[in-house]
Amino acid sequence: MAGYQTFTPEQAAIFANDHSELFGEHSQLQCQEFGDGNLNLVFRVKNQFGTSLIVKQALPYARCVGESWPLTLDRARIEAEVLLIHGKIVPDHTVEVLHHDAGKAAILLEDLGDHQILRQALNQGKQFPLLAEHMATYLAHTGFYTSDFALDAPFKKARTAQFMNPELCQITEDLFFTDPFCNHERNQFDPALKPQVTALWFDDAVKAEVAELKAKFESCPQALLHGDVHSGSIFVSHENTKLIDAEFGFYGPLGFDLGSFIGNLLLNYCALPGLLADESRRRAQQDYLSEQIAATEQLYKRKFLALAARETRDLALQSELYQQRFVQQVIKDALGYAGTELIRRVVGLAHVADLEKISDKRLKNQCESRALALGRKLILQHRQLSGVETVLGWLQEPQL
Amino acid sequence: MAGYQTFTPEQAAIFANDHSELFGEHSQLQCQEFGDGNLNLVFRVKNQFGTSLIVKQALPYARCVGESWPLTLDRARIEAEVLLIHGKIVPDHTVEVLHHDAGKAAILLEDLGDHQILRQALNQGKQFPLLAEHMATYLAHTGFYTSDFALDAPFKKARTAQFMNPELCQITEDLFFTDPFCNHERNQFDPALKPQVTALWFDDAVKAEVAELKAKFESCPQALLHGDVHSGSIFVSHENTKLIDAEFGFYGPLGFDLGSFIGNLLLNYCALPGLLADESRRRAQQDYLSEQIAATEQLYKRKFLALAARETRDLALQSELYQQRFVQQVIKDALGYAGTELIRRVVGLAHVADLEKISDKRLKNQCESRALALGRKLILQHRQLSGVETVLGWLQEPQL
Repeated sequence: MAGYQTFTPEQAAIFANDHSELFGEHSQLQCQEFGDGNLNLVFRVKNQFGTSLIVKQALPYARCVGESWPLTLDRARIEAEVLLIHGKIVPDHTVEVLHHDAGKAAILLEDLGDHQILRQALNQGKQFPLLAEHMATYLAHTGFYTSDFALDAPFKKARTAQFMNPELCQITEDLFFTDPFCNHERNQFDPALKPQVTALWFDDAVKAEVAELKAKFESCPQALLHGDVHSGSIFVSHENTKLIDAEFGFYGPLGFDLGSFIGNLLLNYCALPGLLADESRRRAQQDYLSEQIAATEQLYKRKFLALAARETRDLALQSELYQQRFVQQVIKDALGYAGTELIRRVVGLAHVADLEKISDKRLKNQCESRALALGRKLILQHRQLSGVETVLGWLQEPQL
Repeated sequence: MAGYQTFTPEQAAIFANDHSELFGEHSQLQCQEFGDGNLNLVFRVKNQFGTSLIVKQALPYARCVGESWPLTLDRARIEAEVLLIHGKIVPDHTVEVLHHDAGKAAILLEDLGDHQILRQALNQGKQFPLLAEHMATYLAHTGFYTSDFALDAPFKKARTAQFMNPELCQITEDLFFTDPFCNHERNQFDPALKPQVTALWFDDAVKAEVAELKAKFESCPQALLHGDVHSGSIFVSHENTKLIDAEFGFYGPLGFDLGSFIGNLLLNYCALPGLLADESRRRAQQDYLSEQIAATEQLYKRKFLALAARETRDLALQSELYQQRFVQQVIKDALGYAGTELIRRVVGLAHVADLEKISDKRLKNQCESRALALGRKLILQHRQLSGVETVLGWLQEPQL
């Protein structure tokens, strides 16, 4: 891309200073690269009074793999534009974009340094009572207001074209729906799981369901999704919840974002035996996660249906009966996608700290095996499930 | 659009001559405007030896309504590009595009003057034994080869963006799914049908199904559809079948094209009592239409599944179980869309000659009423139907 070069810390500081009034005239800026993300450079720019901003720059390749995996710089545009749209809808739960430069593939963001990454917090056994409320608000509102319910059809089509995002979608298409269900070289899993994983590769019923979930991911532009709602993309404090990292954003099925979130809570649930040694703390955390999962579903339904009843602009889609069926289908889809998230995090390329940080190998294997079994059951049964309550019931049984 | 002006017959002849070698050096060209379409100018350009070509030019408004309904000239590009893509896949069943000029919004096409428009032919009680075979080939092959089964995901996304076609899609969205199901000023129907039509407007179960069909039309880019497969877009001879008029082309649900075709055969079936007075001819024609409808479904399934088994490139979508479910769902969708076609042709803005040419008003009303009842039943039951066989059974009963 013309004019693109990767930032030095100095250049990142100048970028931040040029595009924000925040630092004031006599600021002495410090800048540090601190990101450990998979795809980008991330800098914190701070003045002597402690005021700080974040500069995020896309690299022309996937950082975690190296220059051999080229990746479009256009993802910086996608990320900024998704966050700006979502931010208009739910400013409380979307990280604020202060500036965006397509040529430099760089974004200037508010610093959420006073928040913690949800994955790390959950792995430490922390609880956030408003998590479900905030996430249901974020998911239902961004979903509704970018959908056919709320937008004129031609405008929504233009938006869909704006966010085709073919390269990043393909990563999801491969890593969620293809690799884990065949003997793919990108897969990474513990050899002890081989029998269970191999069984998956030859399970025609599972593969038929996964094909359907993949096809829906590819051909169901219901709403402008975040596209990567795992618990590493969620910043939390005791008062608030904010989404970051929207570069996977695209028009897709609503159930994918909702299912990614639920899937990540279920992953954490499966990892608890390895994360919290103390049984009463573990039980309390299991209860907390179950409540949050159930509340997410209930609040999502309630919020989405309330918006649909009040604000649906499309005449034909004002059918209340249809709206109820629609949300019910979103829930089913979400449970299917949650299943694929559980499996790909154990079998596929990208693992999660929840499981990886369990040092006892046998215990880690047990947790992973349970995540696999839960994922499989979700994939197989999601079309018949009426909601997540049944799934939470499964978790009470020793054998899934 | 810069450089655009509507053709005089002379200009159309020059356009044809400039872009085809067909006429030869010493041709004396004649040109006549003959189209009676709703949206465009159509010319036949002929030399003294009888060689002829068609020039089709988009007007910047809908011809049937007038300049008060502006309509994008981009539809000429869409039409040409859809026909070229479909023509590569099924050259035997797609009208040949010889040249396309986006600036002039004009297309040069082969002349199908030796063919007849299917609607006119059916209204005269003619039969074409290969119709189902040809249409199933056209629909299954164009559908499969432009879908996620056959195309790389990023390429398919680019194609989807290329054919967003917002303005013409909106016409379908309004005329099929919104207007007929509410008291809309664009509706046109015989006052004698008022009770049946009003009942439809207050039928919550019907409206929920129509909402789902509309949402799927808007948010299910499975394949590059023709988008307007009514029997006026199909040219037939005893040997062949060719599709024309692809300006409504877009990436949508496969069931829409299939259902439009089946819906048009069902419309003709409903009109038969008014079209063929002789009972034995009428019965023979009913049998012919039933056979063709059943054969279309069977052949479509067989052809699509054969292609899917042999040529699916996407690893995850190679699941045979999924492919079978997929085609079964396409059939269900098609029966729903057929239902909306039946209803909108009786209640909505655009009627069909099959019914309009019935001069006996009482008989016409009976036929229309039957089309309405059949449409309603299809819409209500399409998700439960396993195929068109059941629907053909309904047609044997005096009361639907």
